Amino acid sequence: MNQLYQQLTPYLERSMALEAALILFDWDMATLAPEKGAEKTGTMIGILSDEYFKNTTDKTVVELVKKLKDAQDLNEVEAAVVRELWERIERLEGIPSEEYREYSELKAKARGVWEKAREADDYQLFAPVLEKIIGFEKKFAAYQKKDGQNIYDILLDRYEKGFGVKTLDVFFDRLKKELMPVVKQVIAHNDRVDNSFLKKSFDIETQKKVARFIAEYVGFDFEKGVLAESAHPFTTNLHNEDVRITTNYEKHNLEGALFSVIHEAGHGIYELGIRNDLTQTPVGTGASMGIHESQSRFYENMIGRSEAFWKPIYKQLVEAFPSQLTNVSLHQFVQAVNRVEPGLIRIKADELTYCFHIMVRYEMEKLIMEEDVDIAKLPEIWNDKYEEYLGIRPKDDASGILQDVHWSQGDFGYFPSYALGSAFAAQIWHTMEKEISINKELEAGNLKVIKAYLGNHIHQYGKLKPARQLLEEATGEEFNPQYYIDYLKNKYKQIYEL
Amino acid sequence: MNQLYQQLTPYLERSMALEAALILFDWDMATLAPEKGAEKTGTMIGILSDEYFKNTTDKTVVELVKKLKDAQDLNEVEAAVVRELWERIERLEGIPSEEYREYSELKAKARGVWEKAREADDYQLFAPVLEKIIGFEKKFAAYQKKDGQNIYDILLDRYEKGFGVKTLDVFFDRLKKELMPVVKQVIAHNDRVDNSFLKKSFDIETQKKVARFIAEYVGFDFEKGVLAESAHPFTTNLHNEDVRITTNYEKHNLEGALFSVIHEAGHGIYELGIRNDLTQTPVGTGASMGIHESQSRFYENMIGRSEAFWKPIYKQLVEAFPSQLTNVSLHQFVQAVNRVEPGLIRIKADELTYCFHIMVRYEMEKLIMEEDVDIAKLPEIWNDKYEEYLGIRPKDDASGILQDVHWSQGDFGYFPSYALGSAFAAQIWHTMEKEISINKELEAGNLKVIKAYLGNHIHQYGKLKPARQLLEEATGEEFNPQYYIDYLKNKYKQIYEL
Repeated sequence: MNQLYQQLTPYLERSMALEAALILFDWDMATLAPEKGAEKTGTMIGILSDEYFKNTTDKTVVELVKKLKDAQDLNEVEAAVVRELWERIERLEGIPSEEYREYSELKAKARGVWEKAREADDYQLFAPVLEKIIGFEKKFAAYQKKDGQNIYDILLDRYEKGFGVKTLDVFFDRLKKELMPVVKQVIAHNDRVDNSFLKKSFDIETQKKVARFIAEYVGFDFEKGVLAESAHPFTTNLHNEDVRITTNYEKHNLEGALFSVIHEAGHGIYELGIRNDLTQTPVGTGASMGIHESQSRFYENMIGRSEAFWKPIYKQLVEAFPSQLTNVSLHQFVQAVNRVEPGLIRIKADELTYCFHIMVRYEMEKLIMEEDVDIAKLPEIWNDKYEEYLGIRPKDDASGILQDVHWSQGDFGYFPSYALGSAFAAQIWHTMEKEISINKELEAGNLKVIKAYLGNHIHQYGKLKPARQLLEEATGEEFNPQYYIDYLKNKYKQIYEL
Repeated sequence: MNQLYQQLTPYLERSMALEAALILFDWDMATLAPEKGAEKTGTMIGILSDEYFKNTTDKTVVELVKKLKDAQDLNEVEAAVVRELWERIERLEGIPSEEYREYSELKAKARGVWEKAREADDYQLFAPVLEKIIGFEKKFAAYQKKDGQNIYDILLDRYEKGFGVKTLDVFFDRLKKELMPVVKQVIAHNDRVDNSFLKKSFDIETQKKVARFIAEYVGFDFEKGVLAESAHPFTTNLHNEDVRITTNYEKHNLEGALFSVIHEAGHGIYELGIRNDLTQTPVGTGASMGIHESQSRFYENMIGRSEAFWKPIYKQLVEAFPSQLTNVSLHQFVQAVNRVEPGLIRIKADELTYCFHIMVRYEMEKLIMEEDVDIAKLPEIWNDKYEEYLGIRPKDDASGILQDVHWSQGDFGYFPSYALGSAFAAQIWHTMEKEISINKELEAGNLKVIKAYLGNHIHQYGKLKPARQLLEEATGEEFNPQYYIDYLKNKYKQIYEL
């Protein structure tokens, strides 16, 4: 091992352990922790974040990484670790440690404030915190800014390196142009698809059993995983042998828990598939947010909402909910879970209109970061954009601007990766199809073949390669959103028998 | 604030946050974490423990504390913090940091090994780990040892300062002499008490609802608390607004979950009652293990197993389990939950024979720590002692020496505090009775009055005063085990109508 690299070891270990502690606190607060404890626990999280920050930006580490980033005698893992550390240092280096700590404490508390504001449908409650968070994000991005960069590109880069405003403007314009007509056409024929039976009453305990079954069926390993409940479904992990997913059960919504579990299981399978020599290192997690979303969306939408997927197991679903599903054919069920209904809530959106929800957020984030828009006006702007793209206007902020947790956690620049993820997934499907007849495998219940393919081409590598390179190597070509557009057009042609 | 004391602040904050992270990892591993993740998570826990250790024994801290321990201008909280830190330093100072870390990692893994050994009823599986743990305990105690001290006293001191072998030998001898005859007399009349109905089939989901109700009824605040499940019931806390208790449900055992919940709620109420200016400091938790157990046992046994306690709520219990309890009178129920049955399992022991379980462990720990007994022979010695004190011999190690988690976590010296706790509780009851007619309050469902009394006299202080002083100030006299002996004699006279 390179001698300089060896000197990094204690810092890497400390970072890993502190990061794991922070992840565990996050998990705990979202799934279980008592409400009134949040403030005092927030203080502790602030201190640990501060330790993490200090450890990452420690002078010795920074100097070692600066020397190592051009070293020639590192193995591939070491080189990737150094690259990753250098990116983190670039992001954190300029931030004064008190500001970092203050911001961490703010974010820990902001989650609770956001929850309360959403419950009370009171944007005013959230606005002052949001304003502070935006202030921190801008300030921190400015510390990192280089000539010619704009603030929002810096934020976007955190989640999807190399997919800045230039690429995204083109991407979203193309989606708008090609998919808007499809949406209109589909809506005009919406009497062809009935999904009312998905809103009957579904016993929660039975839903929980089905959720566990389905997670296991797609390949989520419960010996190394946990499925719990939280307000907003998410996936987190301590390492490749401890991966946790959550969902949220509603009595009159079978689709919600069912498909969010497949979605989060997709994320989970990714983290469980990362190589043993990468886990517990800085490159031991998913390559990027977009690549991560490509996996969850691959499982949820491309596989999970297909007729081939349900063919071997639909009978079991009907057995779990006989009174609700006995008279529903497999084909009707698959049509129903693909029904297009322009709505207000992103996480309840169908696959076709989903990207328009992202466009709203993308455009708002550009305004927030680049135009100094008035925080008080955000709800109205939000509502205007929903009216423009989705044809409906939120009646309250709870189902408008307050619906997502992201901004309360400072995750600006994150949303576009959801849309990119869908596009990556379609590109990966296209490549995979050359080797594997995916629908045939699904019909035979061979989910293992699919997990193995994704494991080989994507999961195992973690952050070993930059995300863009990983995608190119896995698919043999550059990012190409046409596969996504074609996939959606074909799919809805079939579903709606157009 | 004293200027030197002020310099301690960053170290105190870091210790608090690292300790909270370790507590959360412990909680998570015991309640939820996936089995296969334990090893890798253990590595992280090792690193954090090591950080905690380094922070506690940091040269600057040690020097500050040495200067501060004789300072005259500290307020009562600061003085208590310095006293507590000095005790920790004395315990840790001599231990080389690599050894501390090695031991922490060993303990994190040992829990899993112990669980497997117990499941497989295979002491051989656990013995090598146990031997290593004992080795560490002895070595670490030796680092701390002063002239004339023996190793076991050093370990006992950790949990109950000032209650060493000298005091405990007298205490246990007296219990043996006075209670052995009571046990015999009671057993001879065991046909007078039937508890077979407690072993009928009790639906787990209903037990969970009852458990939550009863925890709330005794005063455990679910806005600041959590009730979960684990193999072995326990209480833990991050601060006075996040306190967590667990229990373990068995279909054919109503008593188990019911009274373990009252027990852990007793611990929980203690931690929830600690003053706001003490929580999140080194003196922001229970005064000692014995005082802690006094509170849990006060709630579980002295209150929870009394007729007065059940009078207002027994009807609700019968409603929850009508087929099992409709024909059982309140008096029969209370008799049943106090039935004396010398058994093999400590945590299932009745209140009267419980102290004999502790005696076995106390005497074995003395042998282990002072006599270099052969680890391979421990199961036999254990079994011999059970035969001597409880009149029954374990048929396997799972229900013998492998039943408790404590030794796998290095908690030698901990067990006696359970018995001391019961004795403290009886002494506190005696004092409380002078001000409050406890049974009358229980009959009226006024649990608040009792919580308030304990809060005022015990809970609020945390570790502000040494435990022995706290007990003396709360009860107006020195430790006196006679109250405990009298209490047990009277109680069983009544229960068994002797």
